[in-house]
Amino acid sequence: MAEDPNYKSRIKILRTGILEMQEYLKKQSISTIILVTGFDGAGKGQIIHRFNEWLDPRTVQTHSFWHHSDEERDRPYYWRYWKCMPPKGKTAIFFGSWYADLIAGKVYGEISEESFHLQKQKILFFEKMLTMDGVHLLKFWLHLTREEQLSKKEDLEKNTQFHWKTQPDDWFNEGHYQKFWEVSESVLQATDHERARWISIPAADPDYRDYLVAKKFVESVQLEIKGDSEAENLNQSPAPVPNSFRPLAHPNGSKEEPASNISKEEYETVLPELQEKLFNLAWEFYYQKKTAFLIFEGWDAAGKGGCIRRIIQSIDARLFEVIPVSAPTQQEHDQHYLWRFWRDLPRAGRMAIFDRSWYGRVLVERVEGFAKTKEWQRAYEEIIEFEHQLISPGNVMQKFWLEISPETQLKRFQKRQDIPFKRFKIGPEDWRNRGKWDEYQIATDDMIQKTSSQSAPWAVINANNKKFARIEVLKIICKVMSEALNPVSKKNSPTTAP
Amino acid sequence: MAEDPNYKSRIKILRTGILEMQEYLKKQSISTIILVTGFDGAGKGQIIHRFNEWLDPRTVQTHSFWHHSDEERDRPYYWRYWKCMPPKGKTAIFFGSWYADLIAGKVYGEISEESFHLQKQKILFFEKMLTMDGVHLLKFWLHLTREEQLSKKEDLEKNTQFHWKTQPDDWFNEGHYQKFWEVSESVLQATDHERARWISIPAADPDYRDYLVAKKFVESVQLEIKGDSEAENLNQSPAPVPNSFRPLAHPNGSKEEPASNISKEEYETVLPELQEKLFNLAWEFYYQKKTAFLIFEGWDAAGKGGCIRRIIQSIDARLFEVIPVSAPTQQEHDQHYLWRFWRDLPRAGRMAIFDRSWYGRVLVERVEGFAKTKEWQRAYEEIIEFEHQLISPGNVMQKFWLEISPETQLKRFQKRQDIPFKRFKIGPEDWRNRGKWDEYQIATDDMIQKTSSQSAPWAVINANNKKFARIEVLKIICKVMSEALNPVSKKNSPTTAP
Repeated sequence: MAEDPNYKSRIKILRTGILEMQEYLKKQSISTIILVTGFDGAGKGQIIHRFNEWLDPRTVQTHSFWHHSDEERDRPYYWRYWKCMPPKGKTAIFFGSWYADLIAGKVYGEISEESFHLQKQKILFFEKMLTMDGVHLLKFWLHLTREEQLSKKEDLEKNTQFHWKTQPDDWFNEGHYQKFWEVSESVLQATDHERARWISIPAADPDYRDYLVAKKFVESVQLEIKGDSEAENLNQSPAPVPNSFRPLAHPNGSKEEPASNISKEEYETVLPELQEKLFNLAWEFYYQKKTAFLIFEGWDAAGKGGCIRRIIQSIDARLFEVIPVSAPTQQEHDQHYLWRFWRDLPRAGRMAIFDRSWYGRVLVERVEGFAKTKEWQRAYEEIIEFEHQLISPGNVMQKFWLEISPETQLKRFQKRQDIPFKRFKIGPEDWRNRGKWDEYQIATDDMIQKTSSQSAPWAVINANNKKFARIEVLKIICKVMSEALNPVSKKNSPTTAP
Repeated sequence: MAEDPNYKSRIKILRTGILEMQEYLKKQSISTIILVTGFDGAGKGQIIHRFNEWLDPRTVQTHSFWHHSDEERDRPYYWRYWKCMPPKGKTAIFFGSWYADLIAGKVYGEISEESFHLQKQKILFFEKMLTMDGVHLLKFWLHLTREEQLSKKEDLEKNTQFHWKTQPDDWFNEGHYQKFWEVSESVLQATDHERARWISIPAADPDYRDYLVAKKFVESVQLEIKGDSEAENLNQSPAPVPNSFRPLAHPNGSKEEPASNISKEEYETVLPELQEKLFNLAWEFYYQKKTAFLIFEGWDAAGKGGCIRRIIQSIDARLFEVIPVSAPTQQEHDQHYLWRFWRDLPRAGRMAIFDRSWYGRVLVERVEGFAKTKEWQRAYEEIIEFEHQLISPGNVMQKFWLEISPETQLKRFQKRQDIPFKRFKIGPEDWRNRGKWDEYQIATDDMIQKTSSQSAPWAVINANNKKFARIEVLKIICKVMSEALNPVSKKNSPTTAP
């Protein structure tokens, strides 16, 4: 390989620019992800070393993704990447990424053509979501021609200093090169989009390669600086909500339905029956490694907590997790709004019960103006995709909206103030929210219409009578969980579980 | 079971107190851990449900610890618990804990008497460390006599509502009861200490049990409020540093040694040789599932970054992680100072390279007064124990102090200001620290003397000549890693790794 002192000195000059750009990203609270991928032998590892050399290491973290751990296999595919998302102002370098599995899977014939196509779409959506949230995503493809790859091999054999950096045999196989490039090219084409263009780097000459990568890094941030206002414009019109997901009415009864009741006797008979059923269903879900996601939203004082308590009372404590969701912490605020929900996803076979959820984005954040219009507008589609990933391995999701009348709420607020140990549940904020009843109503209607689907339906529960609501909720849970079970014979008794 | 309406109403009265106590803990930024353990059938799960009912759920999280995942098995034992530590002001309820594994292990004869004894000491140390850091630790033991346990069984069989809450057969076995209680009692005795007393609850009558638990919770916080000043006193004298860990002099050379040099030619011959050796050692460590912890501390501008780059250049990017350590974030600040290092521990078989480390506690935090005297004084012992846990599964730890003279530092600072792309490395803080050279010197000497041990030694490196220092560091790493390898034949070539 010809040493070109010119490129080396050019890199030296660029290094100041790299640091200035990094400083800009930090000051603007922009998270940066640098993906490095490409041909074997093209120097992916070396580029990662370069970035570690060039950048101020205090705001950079390198993540290498390799074998999936059992914790990762027990969760939706993107979980391992969400775990490593850089917070605002920080940079993450990804060695191995969502591209590596996809390309290798296709090259070695482990995934079907259909799944290959679908995964490319998923990547596109995922990257769009991140970049629209302000992530600066840089994707480097290190390219080698077949001739260059062979000459790399010779170099490696001749070079006494680095001969120990061995490479797999596949690497030198003509057929493998062709197949790998064919698959990769199709992936690159499908995932090259306005906000995250692929940067293809000719990688034969290491110095030129390094120089180009440095230059492209600087240019990409300069473009970001220059294009801030233009990007704003691009972003004006929200992503359209896919029609197929829009049911025309509330899926479970109408809000205008009169208060429904249940007698004390019936309640006390039915409750333990349903709880027993749920106890067994939870164990069966555990055996079948299925996860049930139960999402609770509703007006303040609608009785979410009471419903959730009736559910968890009847489930073994090892089999569920309640995730109470309130205003984001600083750490959560420094990430995409879905990040904290990814973080809290349970392993396969557990039930996850969300006391409030990601729907805050289109409810409180919309009404109170915490999210910009375009942000909450594109959230519907983002949430649909997010939920789709959660349920796709055969899991179950049921979303509950607990509906009460303003009069019922008023009565309950007053009661909360009267009972000492319930007083903590009521504060000035609750009264303030009450004043915005109509705005919340509109947001709720939009939410239910735009995010209900066959596989992740909303159930609107008339919760003016607490007992009735609890029974309704338990009935629906038992129903959807029963329907989702594989028709296998019941395993051993619960306590002999591994 | 006799229903005692009295206890139920007493609990109602206590509930306001519980919430007030929780509010106090929150306002005082105290983290709370509630451990629930005891006999099978005593109602551990029910107590956890009660706490979820009584406490404001927004600051409570319940964690159940069950089977260990592969990610957990690949790290030191306490990692799974550190992951779930409540930040300041929050409460964590632990169902299953460090007690469960220990008691079960001993009952079923899976651990030796010696290991049983050692584990009890580890628990004691661990809990003391947490509580001295301000964690409010509540440990409930739910007790049943043999007669009560048998009567529970009858109840369960008679009770139509809850007959489905099955229990293991072991439970009713006379021998098991005796053995379980014998082991448990010995654990309780060994781990009952001033700052985390066991609270033993007679659990036969559910209402009385619940009432007692509620009462003890309130009382424990009241004691905390009352005892704040007394506790201060208890805490005055720092834990003594164990003598056995104090070597009399720096283990690797003395600081007064004259500047050591290496010729450019020798450097360029030796460097690649050592890098090749390290490349292979890293793979061998991966195969043998051993972790190497390399800790870098030293004066500003001593060349830590340069040393680290020479190390990672020669290791496959999947096999190491560099963890740069700077001032804690708010999230990290809300936890024990060791928490963030636990969080970043790599899986078995990887190398972890810390660019600065937990030693900040006894260096910058001591000198700048960020830690109280008693805090940094007890840190020596805490760090020794922490490192012991990291290295005990056959891992390796090597700590480097890069020593330079004040004159060398001055020269390098000036150079940093002259080279544009190095300017980011120097700021007013560096000049300020330079003014405290003597104080840092004392802190460094204390640190090296008090925390060097056979299994986690410090190497003091004369770093006035950068090239010499890099070679020294690489030599030492290769030496300690070679010595730690099991004498097995070398596996396949690196790239055919699974």
